[in-house]
Amino acid sequence: MVMPLALLEKSMNRKISLLLKDNRILEGKLTGYDDYMNMVLEDTEERTSDQTRRLGTVVLRGNNVVSISPL
Amino acid sequence: MVMPLALLEKSMNRKISLLLKDNRILEGKLTGYDDYMNMVLEDTEERTSDQTRRLGTVVLRGNNVVSISPL
Amino acid sequence: MVMPLALLEKSMNRKISLLLKDNRILEGKLTGYDDYMNMVLEDTEERTSDQTRRLGTVVLRGNNVVSISPL
Amino acid sequence: MVMPLALLEKSMNRKISLLLKDNRILEGKLTGYDDYMNMVLEDTEERTSDQTRRLGTVVLRGNNVVSISPL
Amino acid sequence: MVMPLALLEKSMNRKISLLLKDNRILEGKLTGYDDYMNMVLEDTEERTSDQTRRLGTVVLRGNNVVSISPL
Amino acid sequence: MVMPLALLEKSMNRKISLLLKDNRILEGKLTGYDDYMNMVLEDTEERTSDQTRRLGTVVLRGNNVVSISPL
Amino acid sequence: MVMPLALLEKSMNRKISLLLKDNRILEGKLTGYDDYMNMVLEDTEERTSDQTRRLGTVVLRGNNVVSISPL
Repeated sequence: MVMPLALLEKSMNRKISLLLKDNRILEGKLTGYDDYMNMVLEDTEERTSDQTRRLGTVVLRGNNVVSISPL
Repeated sequence: MVMPLALLEKSMNRKISLLLKDNRILEGKLTGYDDYMNMVLEDTEERTSDQTRRLGTVVLRGNNVVSISPL
Repeated sequence: MVMPLALLEKSMNRKISLLLKDNRILEGKLTGYDDYMNMVLEDTEERTSDQTRRLGTVVLRGNNVVSISPL
Repeated sequence: MVMPLALLEKSMNRKISLLLKDNRILEGKLTGYDDYMNMVLEDTEERTSDQTRRLGTVVLRGNNVVSISPL
Repeated sequence: MVMPLALLEKSMNRKISLLLKDNRILEGKLTGYDDYMNMVLEDTEERTSDQTRRLGTVVLRGNNVVSISPL
Repeated sequence: MVMPLALLEKSMNRKISLLLKDNRILEGKLTGYDDYMNMVLEDTEERTSDQTRRLGTVVLRGNNVVSISPL
Repeated sequence: MVMPLALLEKSMNRKISLLLKDNRILEGKLTGYDDYMNMVLEDTEERTSDQTRRLGTVVLRGNNVVSISPL
C-alpha cells in the first residue's frame, strides 16, 4: 500500500507534473507539501501545446489539483 | 454490505478505471488510497475515443473522482 | 419518518437508479453505501437516450449524486 | 421564529416542491429528511414546461437543493 | 458592529430581498433562519424583469444565497 | 503582519469595495463581519460600467467574495 | 521541506503574484495571511494583457487562489 501523501514524500526534491482543474499543466521540483496537498514547486514551468512559461517558485492550493505525477 | 472503501481495498494491485469530473477516463493499477478516496495509480493511461496517453504513476485527488470501476 | 440513509438500507441488493450531477443516469444493484452516500453498485448500466453502456461494479462518490430512486 | 428544519417537519407527509441547482423542479410527498436537508420524496414527479415524468420514491441530496416550498 | 446574523434577527417578520447564485431574486417576509443562513420566507415572490411569480412559503438553503437586503 | 480579519476590523465604518465571484462589484460602508467573512454593508451600491444601482443595507455571504478593498 | 505556509511567511513584505480561479492575475506586497491562505496585499495591481489596474490594499479569500509566486 502506497498512501497518496507517501508518494508525495517520495517525490520530494524530484520533478513532478501537476494537472490543475483549469487544465493547466505545471512541471517543477516538489520542495514541500502539507496534509491538504497544498504544494511548493521550484523551477516551475507551465506547459501548453505551443509554449512554455517560467513561473519559478509556486505555492499551489491542493483543491485546485486534479492529479500529480512523478516525472 | 460492501462498504465503498472496502471495494477499493479489494481492488488493490488490480486494474481499475476512473471517471473524473472533467470527463477524463483513467485506467491503471491501484496501489494506494486514503479515507478521502485520494488514490495512487501505476501504469496509468488516459483514454479518449481517439488516443491513449501514458501517465505512469499518478496521485488522484478524491474530490475530482466521479466513479471507480474494477476492470 | 424515513431517514434518507434508511431508504438506502431498504434498497440494499435491489436495483436503483442514480442521477449524477453531470446528468448521467446509472442503474445497478446497490450492494453498499456509507454515511457520505458513497455507494457501491453491481451490474451497473449507464443509460442515455440512444444507448446502454455496461459498467459492471462501480463505486460512486456521494457528492456527485443528485438523486437516488429504488426501481 | 420558524427554523428551516422545523418547516420541513411541518411538511412531513405533505406535498412539496423542490427547486434543484440544475433548475429541475420536483414535486412529491415528503416522507423523510435529515440534518443536511437530504430528503425522501414519494410519488415524485419532475415537471418541465412541456412534460411530467414520474420518478416514484426519490432520495435527494441536500446540497443540490436551492429551495423547498410546501404546496 | 452589526454581526451578519444579527441583521437577519433584526429583519425577522419583515420583507427582505435575496439574490441567489443562479441570479434569481426572491422577495418575501423572513420568518426564520439558522446558523447556516438557511432561511424561511413567506409570501415569497420571484421577480424577473418581465414577470412576478408567487412561491408562497419557501425554505432557502444558505449556500445558494449571495446577498440579503432588508426592504 | 496584518491578519486578513484585522484589516476588516480596521475598515469598520469605512467604505470598502467587494468583488464577488459572479464579477459583481459592490461598494458600501462596512458595519459588521464574522469569522467566515460574511459581511454587513450599508449604503451599498452595485457598480457596473454603465450604471449604479442602490441596494441599501446588504448581508454578503463570505464564500461569494473574491476580494475586499478599503476605499 | 518547505511547508506551503512557510513560503508565505518567507514572502512577507515582498512582492508576490497571485493567480485567481477566475484567471485574474494580481501582484502586490504580501502584508498578511492566515491558515486558510486568506491574504492581505498592498499596492496591488491587476494585470491583464493590455492594461494594469491599481487596486491598493486587498484582502483575498484563500479559496479563490490557484497559485502564489514570490516575484
